[in-house]
Amino acid sequence: MVNIAVMGYGTVGSGVVEVVRTNGARINQRIGDELNIKYVLDLKEFPGDPVQDKIVHDFETIIDDDDIKIVVEVMGGIEPAYTFVKRCLQAGKSVATSNKALVAKHGAELLSIAKDQGINFLFEASVGGGIPIIRPLNSSLTADEIEEITGILNGTTNYMMTKMFYEGADYDEVLKEAQANGFAERNPEADVEGYDACRKIAILSSLISGQQVDFEDIYCEGITKITAEDMKYAKAMGTTIKLLASSKRRGNRLHAIVAPCMLYPGHPLYNVNGVFNAIFVHGNVLGDAMFYGSGAGKLPTASAVVADVVDAAKHLNRNIMTMWKQDKLKLEDKADAKRRFFIRMKGDAQEMLADLRDSFGDIEIVHADGLDGEFGFITPVMMEGDYDTRAGIYKDEILHMIRIQE
Amino acid sequence: MVNIAVMGYGTVGSGVVEVVRTNGARINQRIGDELNIKYVLDLKEFPGDPVQDKIVHDFETIIDDDDIKIVVEVMGGIEPAYTFVKRCLQAGKSVATSNKALVAKHGAELLSIAKDQGINFLFEASVGGGIPIIRPLNSSLTADEIEEITGILNGTTNYMMTKMFYEGADYDEVLKEAQANGFAERNPEADVEGYDACRKIAILSSLISGQQVDFEDIYCEGITKITAEDMKYAKAMGTTIKLLASSKRRGNRLHAIVAPCMLYPGHPLYNVNGVFNAIFVHGNVLGDAMFYGSGAGKLPTASAVVADVVDAAKHLNRNIMTMWKQDKLKLEDKADAKRRFFIRMKGDAQEMLADLRDSFGDIEIVHADGLDGEFGFITPVMMEGDYDTRAGIYKDEILHMIRIQE
Repeated sequence: MVNIAVMGYGTVGSGVVEVVRTNGARINQRIGDELNIKYVLDLKEFPGDPVQDKIVHDFETIIDDDDIKIVVEVMGGIEPAYTFVKRCLQAGKSVATSNKALVAKHGAELLSIAKDQGINFLFEASVGGGIPIIRPLNSSLTADEIEEITGILNGTTNYMMTKMFYEGADYDEVLKEAQANGFAERNPEADVEGYDACRKIAILSSLISGQQVDFEDIYCEGITKITAEDMKYAKAMGTTIKLLASSKRRGNRLHAIVAPCMLYPGHPLYNVNGVFNAIFVHGNVLGDAMFYGSGAGKLPTASAVVADVVDAAKHLNRNIMTMWKQDKLKLEDKADAKRRFFIRMKGDAQEMLADLRDSFGDIEIVHADGLDGEFGFITPVMMEGDYDTRAGIYKDEILHMIRIQE
Repeated sequence: MVNIAVMGYGTVGSGVVEVVRTNGARINQRIGDELNIKYVLDLKEFPGDPVQDKIVHDFETIIDDDDIKIVVEVMGGIEPAYTFVKRCLQAGKSVATSNKALVAKHGAELLSIAKDQGINFLFEASVGGGIPIIRPLNSSLTADEIEEITGILNGTTNYMMTKMFYEGADYDEVLKEAQANGFAERNPEADVEGYDACRKIAILSSLISGQQVDFEDIYCEGITKITAEDMKYAKAMGTTIKLLASSKRRGNRLHAIVAPCMLYPGHPLYNVNGVFNAIFVHGNVLGDAMFYGSGAGKLPTASAVVADVVDAAKHLNRNIMTMWKQDKLKLEDKADAKRRFFIRMKGDAQEMLADLRDSFGDIEIVHADGLDGEFGFITPVMMEGDYDTRAGIYKDEILHMIRIQE
């Protein structure tokens, strides 16, 4: 029998219990042994709940029990999760977690402890919910240099962008609706400001570079300034706008950014709509690939956590995860990244055209129906630093800038 | 040093050599040891080629060399691949193959030998080229009951369907163009009749059911009868037509089929265009997921083969693949599968409506621009056997039937 403990009995924790109950027979077959949830750690009691007899309130019960070989951490947040997980690993217990904040901040250290102990620290559910991405990067795409990972990593904002694009709705209106439907939290900051996506791309960046990438170092711009007018231009250009979290390698340098971007229909992420997440990967020999699925939700996330438990159970005394080093990777300066930019500007396109061409080069003018006294234009590929300099000249005229993803 | 042999120096074989040469440093880092291609088995000589000194013509050289721990089989076809692979496994050498015919026919036996020997028989590249799907099914989606796998598993036919849909071109015209571009072979039968996709869905079906699924048992219909007129109806219905290979479980029964199907835009496979492949997976707790990428091609396929070599090298004496049993799974009778059908019929819709409603129930009429003397209709959900009975009544009027994928 493989005994495990689940720390945290919230949405994901109760999902983990449900997945083990629903698919237990198949899971046991895959492990080759019987999986048993021995403890569920939570501050609350759950009278009448199937796990009521397994509830413990003291972490020491778990750490002291040598029967427990695998611990699921689904409490979220940094503390006490970090202390608990570290102590579990130091005590020789493998850990499976869905906690992106924990992995983004302490992943390198926790992976290193697990390696020293010959056990595993697994976190498939921390990025992309149920979508397998961590394990494919770790064990499938091993013949490649991964040159780019770009993801729609936050379902809330993708739901909002999709609504704004297809229904022409306002940001505030869509946010209220998302909150009413339970797709956005009362305090939506972590989603709409891009912080959630930023932690996830930090984890993916660390994995592909083999070095710690701090999310605080990644330029992060949310969707709060995207308007119904922006979407009109996007449509006129045949594009859509998505919140993308992206990491691109150029030689030894990595350019990571979270920002709303315009995407053309040829891009595999163009059609990823609603609360779905997807992760685009470009490998130097694989070419383009994409992984798509439910990026959040109780059961999809629990599915990924339990798959990690299965893997941990099959490798009880064998470390299987690639590590990344604790020394920080120096990211490429945002000013050095090259791309095209879409700019909305006050004024008259014909009057300003010659002047703008002088500044930005061979720009392309875009008009959107029903928007008077303004116009849009697309710059050629240029460095973001050069864009910034030129945009400074027109700071009173520029209404909005949105990056273009090729 | 991990010494390997590559059997077959055709497109994929030379791709494997190129991938190891290009990404060798990173691959060695991931294995934790140096990967060395010691032999390349081929009937021909390759003077001036980087591998000219490694070329051997006799399989016995490989089997007799105890240094060779891993063998790559990329010759294709059943013989001598089967004999060679079996002897390698029996001699304790792990095998990585891209050979779908071999895996579909002898996978169960070869997996079983590998398990007995404590080594590995890996075949990521046999389905979906560079797209990771075998390993995710084996080690990522382990908390789920996989209820459905539906894939666009053949790039040639997807290229042709895409061209016919977007350009309104004829089947013959598109086939000629595909042949001229190198996307279709001179003898295109294996692709256009669906046999290639059929072998691949047989492999995926065996994996998810844990029992041998023979491709000969799977109903297989190619794209040769799809016309420009069919595409007009598809457009009128807001659908597209794709060659889908599908496997659905209902309890202990599995319904597997390869056929051109109409797909609505809400389906994740709707936007998979050109030579790309994609595999849609539905798990009972995961929900919907999709894996997308290059389903063929020298380097993407070699990327998957080399990733298998990396995995084999990391698990030299440890079996990691789930097996399937050799006893054959009895597939659900095609007649019992339920779905909606699109039918093109000669005649006048209004005159025949009452009669057709009598036979098929509450049908929906579809008209396509410029097609006189015929019309289309969509049936309600019905068993295919019931459809067949009813279609028999109208056999002189029915021009074509295309299944609808929900």
